[in-house]
Amino acid sequence: MINKLNEKIKKTGAPIVVGLDPMLSYLPTHLLDAAVAEKGESLEAVADAIFAYNKAIVDATYDLIPAVKPQIAMYEQFGLPGLAAFKKTVDYCHEKDLVVIGDVKRGDIGSTSAAYATAHLGQVAVGSKVLTPFDEDFATVNPYLGSDGIEPFVKVCKEEKKGIFVLVKTSNPSSGEFQDRVITDDEGKQRPLYEFVGQMVDKWGSDCMGDDYSYVGAVVGATYPEMGKVLRELMPKSYILVPGYGAQGGKGADLVHFFDKDGLGAIVNSSRGIIAAYKQEQYQAKGITEENFADASRMAVEAMIADIKSALN
Amino acid sequence: MINKLNEKIKKTGAPIVVGLDPMLSYLPTHLLDAAVAEKGESLEAVADAIFAYNKAIVDATYDLIPAVKPQIAMYEQFGLPGLAAFKKTVDYCHEKDLVVIGDVKRGDIGSTSAAYATAHLGQVAVGSKVLTPFDEDFATVNPYLGSDGIEPFVKVCKEEKKGIFVLVKTSNPSSGEFQDRVITDDEGKQRPLYEFVGQMVDKWGSDCMGDDYSYVGAVVGATYPEMGKVLRELMPKSYILVPGYGAQGGKGADLVHFFDKDGLGAIVNSSRGIIAAYKQEQYQAKGITEENFADASRMAVEAMIADIKSALN
Repeated sequence: MINKLNEKIKKTGAPIVVGLDPMLSYLPTHLLDAAVAEKGESLEAVADAIFAYNKAIVDATYDLIPAVKPQIAMYEQFGLPGLAAFKKTVDYCHEKDLVVIGDVKRGDIGSTSAAYATAHLGQVAVGSKVLTPFDEDFATVNPYLGSDGIEPFVKVCKEEKKGIFVLVKTSNPSSGEFQDRVITDDEGKQRPLYEFVGQMVDKWGSDCMGDDYSYVGAVVGATYPEMGKVLRELMPKSYILVPGYGAQGGKGADLVHFFDKDGLGAIVNSSRGIIAAYKQEQYQAKGITEENFADASRMAVEAMIADIKSALN
Repeated sequence: MINKLNEKIKKTGAPIVVGLDPMLSYLPTHLLDAAVAEKGESLEAVADAIFAYNKAIVDATYDLIPAVKPQIAMYEQFGLPGLAAFKKTVDYCHEKDLVVIGDVKRGDIGSTSAAYATAHLGQVAVGSKVLTPFDEDFATVNPYLGSDGIEPFVKVCKEEKKGIFVLVKTSNPSSGEFQDRVITDDEGKQRPLYEFVGQMVDKWGSDCMGDDYSYVGAVVGATYPEMGKVLRELMPKSYILVPGYGAQGGKGADLVHFFDKDGLGAIVNSSRGIIAAYKQEQYQAKGITEENFADASRMAVEAMIADIKSALN
């Protein structure tokens, strides 16, 4: 799957991923009203509106982009119907041949991590049947529990030729609270914890390589470009998933150090900036309303691709 | 809810929680066969068998225990039907007046952490209706992303009078890989990362206090009793949720340092040792078969309570 992701990035010339993170406040009124008219004021209605919203955005952008990243929390908050909309979104994106990165930030130990890996990347045997739970192509994983938490994911990645992105340095203001503390690594060198986690990402990925990159990538926030530069060197075979572009303050020019010299090796996420683009004045000035919200998403994808291309050139 | 948990522990004299972590291999054959006969070899059948299994164990033990801790990964691996069994289990345990600790180990930033908090502890407004997604009483939370990830949970805990347990020092062999690294804390003192996370737990809990304990507890593995002793002192107002008893190697005698002098302040989890007790020779020798598996769970709960009581006395 890392090969497919890399190939699709080359083909589209767009090292970007659209974050399908449907906040209730982003849903255009007409979609929510239609769903409520049919199913009442219910979680089921919100779930229907979410899927209609996602589908329109995917239909308007899928030919421009290699991948999507649904954030499962935004579905989980609407209970079982919300998670059904998550699954429907994953399946629909696969129909459109998009790579699906499940932003699930799971992580536990031993058999429990194995269960999460099965849930999101694997298959489960029930009698003579082999069944597929959520079926994303990649999942994001939290490293706090150490190798015991990561290795069950790596095992499933090898079996299924899928991948993970391990949280290394997150984009939020307080990410340094624990991640930036200086520790002594296994070679006796003093370095911030996130660098040591980066070393481990490189190690975990070393025995599950695709053609050019390993199945084990890393999450590093666009808001910390200098740290991205160091991590790029520490993890030469890992794709970096870069959140924090756009709404969180990261700009195209900040991103250059996350990429390899050939402009590959990183994929930049934007969520609000694309899926809620219709709320921005710049798109409203071009005739965008709530009704044609997905057209604004397409314009925002084109603008983001241009911004990153100009930064990389 | 922390008050209810503490009161129920006093009333039952049992500072224990039963981990409802239904592995496929634990399910008694007759339950799975009956479900497959009705629904075929499907995720729905496994989900039905899981709920029947949980219900029997809860019915056999609920009068002895204050709380249960379903591990959501074990349900998530069976997709949407699995998560429906999770929700049904939470609701059934509430009917039996048990405190439900959702072992979900979620954690993200800002609005995403808020969405997870809503999903597991909160409520969501859809038009004029206020709806409840999963409705656990407590959730476990991963701290790697820092205060930005925890504060949205604390906010919901205050609104709903619910609680969280933050991962501080986990029970697995490789937990030290990152958690034990020595860092410099905010007062300039050198200490392991898990102690610093413990300090933060104490701080996060300081403005959301129940009668005796705060809404913010900590997870500290039974397999690290010396560290438990230090953390008990660092977080005097936090309940400690202690996994790793039984199958993972922790013993009653190891647990004494996790408790306050009055025998409160900690709650010890056992999963396999209780829910799969019917597979142990000691219970089979007492007439237990797959058919009456839940009777073994009751015997195992009684044995665990006695073990911890004798350690505390």
